[in-house]
Amino acid sequence: MMLSLPDQMQLDQFLAQVRHLAGLELGYPVAFDLDFSALTPFLTVSLNNAGDPFEPMTYQLNSHEFEREVVSFFAELARAPEDQWWGYVTNGSTEGNLYGLYLARELFPDGMVYFSQDSHYSVSKNLHFLNMRHIMIRSQDSGEIDYDDLRETLRIRRDVPPIIFANVGTTMKEARDDVGRIQSILDDMAIENRYIHVDAALCGGYAAYLEPRPSWDFEDGADSIAISGHKFFASPIPCGVVLARRSHVERIGHSVAYIGSMDTTISGSRNGLTPLVLWYAIRALGHEGMKRRIEHALDTAAYTEEQLNKAGIKAWRNPNALTVIFPQPPRAVCEKWQLATANGNSHIICMPHITREKIDEVLNDILASGAEAS
Amino acid sequence: MMLSLPDQMQLDQFLAQVRHLAGLELGYPVAFDLDFSALTPFLTVSLNNAGDPFEPMTYQLNSHEFEREVVSFFAELARAPEDQWWGYVTNGSTEGNLYGLYLARELFPDGMVYFSQDSHYSVSKNLHFLNMRHIMIRSQDSGEIDYDDLRETLRIRRDVPPIIFANVGTTMKEARDDVGRIQSILDDMAIENRYIHVDAALCGGYAAYLEPRPSWDFEDGADSIAISGHKFFASPIPCGVVLARRSHVERIGHSVAYIGSMDTTISGSRNGLTPLVLWYAIRALGHEGMKRRIEHALDTAAYTEEQLNKAGIKAWRNPNALTVIFPQPPRAVCEKWQLATANGNSHIICMPHITREKIDEVLNDILASGAEAS
Repeated sequence: MMLSLPDQMQLDQFLAQVRHLAGLELGYPVAFDLDFSALTPFLTVSLNNAGDPFEPMTYQLNSHEFEREVVSFFAELARAPEDQWWGYVTNGSTEGNLYGLYLARELFPDGMVYFSQDSHYSVSKNLHFLNMRHIMIRSQDSGEIDYDDLRETLRIRRDVPPIIFANVGTTMKEARDDVGRIQSILDDMAIENRYIHVDAALCGGYAAYLEPRPSWDFEDGADSIAISGHKFFASPIPCGVVLARRSHVERIGHSVAYIGSMDTTISGSRNGLTPLVLWYAIRALGHEGMKRRIEHALDTAAYTEEQLNKAGIKAWRNPNALTVIFPQPPRAVCEKWQLATANGNSHIICMPHITREKIDEVLNDILASGAEAS
Repeated sequence: MMLSLPDQMQLDQFLAQVRHLAGLELGYPVAFDLDFSALTPFLTVSLNNAGDPFEPMTYQLNSHEFEREVVSFFAELARAPEDQWWGYVTNGSTEGNLYGLYLARELFPDGMVYFSQDSHYSVSKNLHFLNMRHIMIRSQDSGEIDYDDLRETLRIRRDVPPIIFANVGTTMKEARDDVGRIQSILDDMAIENRYIHVDAALCGGYAAYLEPRPSWDFEDGADSIAISGHKFFASPIPCGVVLARRSHVERIGHSVAYIGSMDTTISGSRNGLTPLVLWYAIRALGHEGMKRRIEHALDTAAYTEEQLNKAGIKAWRNPNALTVIFPQPPRAVCEKWQLATANGNSHIICMPHITREKIDEVLNDILASGAEAS
């Protein structure tokens, strides 16, 4: 199977272009420092992980064995209760969040979902999709949920089971809602029927390595957690992991003769390559390698914040965050460096592949453009 | 980034194993005849097609340009109304079917979904997910929907907008519901508020090349169609295409500042590699190449049906189908050849890579096992 010459040229040009653009990408939480080219032979086999990774399957071209290792690794990071959790590799955190909300709805069909105004745009989309009632809670300036507003809003609805959608790493400011504190608020009101889903798309990859450890996981009170695989874990294909308390999942499983497996996932056919990608990263780097990557990234973030401020640009970041926020620079700079922007603010996300030299480059661009503008 | 020796050995062993298993796979609709290894360099760049492929996007490492070509190709196959359609590359047909049902629900929140008992198991899952009322319709022995039962069931609910979930290619028998005939039934009852979603996961890849052309597409009355990319189109990663009438999609779009794009897809981050895979297949083979593949596959299917019957095994298939159905052979044969089985029947799906020699092999195994059993 071969392309015509013009088609081949189009493809080659595109590859060169994206390679170039990858070096000019500072605005999105995507890491480029890991090389998965050792997995390329798997592009020639049609892996399909349909169904539950913990159940046998008739279609034998699957990587369930690797997927189980991957979800176990994340279950350990997220301190899931031993043998009382379940999970699978998703197509990304939107699917993981959808899954968590779905479990919550099955447990509490009349529940009310609470989430902060800094939540990812997909949350409203997911809630609409699942037909779930919801109330948006104010955010603090940091991007973290406003606990007073949450408490007051819950207080007048103590008869309705609350479903809290917590962010551990908001999209724009990487703010982390404190799961333990949310848990305490619910405890104080003696609300027993409750559910906490944690969208840890970005920070779930490294929260366990931070000092102090953020309050975000199962021991802190989460019922389900979604983590992305293409952010900190650098998968070149979007993916993620969703984890949940096993008892919640058992409520939605039903046996499916066709695939010879319990059907507890959202997707039908599932990507079998991404579990290999995550397995590869975990095995090649281990906890030590991951720790080194987050330490480097935190160092770059501190440097970025410092250099911007030194240059007279009011930059800030949340504690131990990789995301540095500053007033939106001129449009040309945003476009060149692919900086996401909202409400007049832009951010640089210091993923592990970003170096101080790269930060100096963008800073020069910002200063040069500012000079031009004045 | 390197693996330890035992880890590398585990991976190598797994690759050898799946390569071996790929040669022993006759039960699932997965084609292995196309080689996409030319795309392996893209495994080292993190493409992400988040959002609407027809809208500009801040994150520039996307393959939207290729994705648009791919969906346009499928829109042509499915005779979508010119400039009045929309679509995107999904993670598979479950997502495409979920999307079609979601559009239908937004149009007709009080609608009733009708689908045949031969529908894929994911349909019930999707309907539960979307909280949609539904009625299962009887199937004929062929697997096609029972039009009399459909008509009678619709007749007593003419006040409720019907949402028909039609199968073009059922999972076990590759039966094709006749979209034109469903359309006529609705016309006869003068039901104007109605929606037809077509699950063409398998047959959507080649229905347009068949003679006579099955009644399955937009001109026949479909409002949305889901087609798989990892079945007839041989993508090594699960994917698909969903197409819908543009007016339906416009009802659900809402602007999203963060990604600088209309948010009309289900996923957040989306795979950017699979659009390249489909583009590659389309460009390298064209309509002519695709026609040759389906002709070869139909020839193999006819051969399979004939040889099984000659050997005294009662085999049959639907008109112009690649799926040959016969009484379930002994367990060892089902396991070796990964034959999906339901209600005492197994099937072989003659995808384009399958040869007459392979069919002779499995037939010998069936006959040998029968001899042992007697």
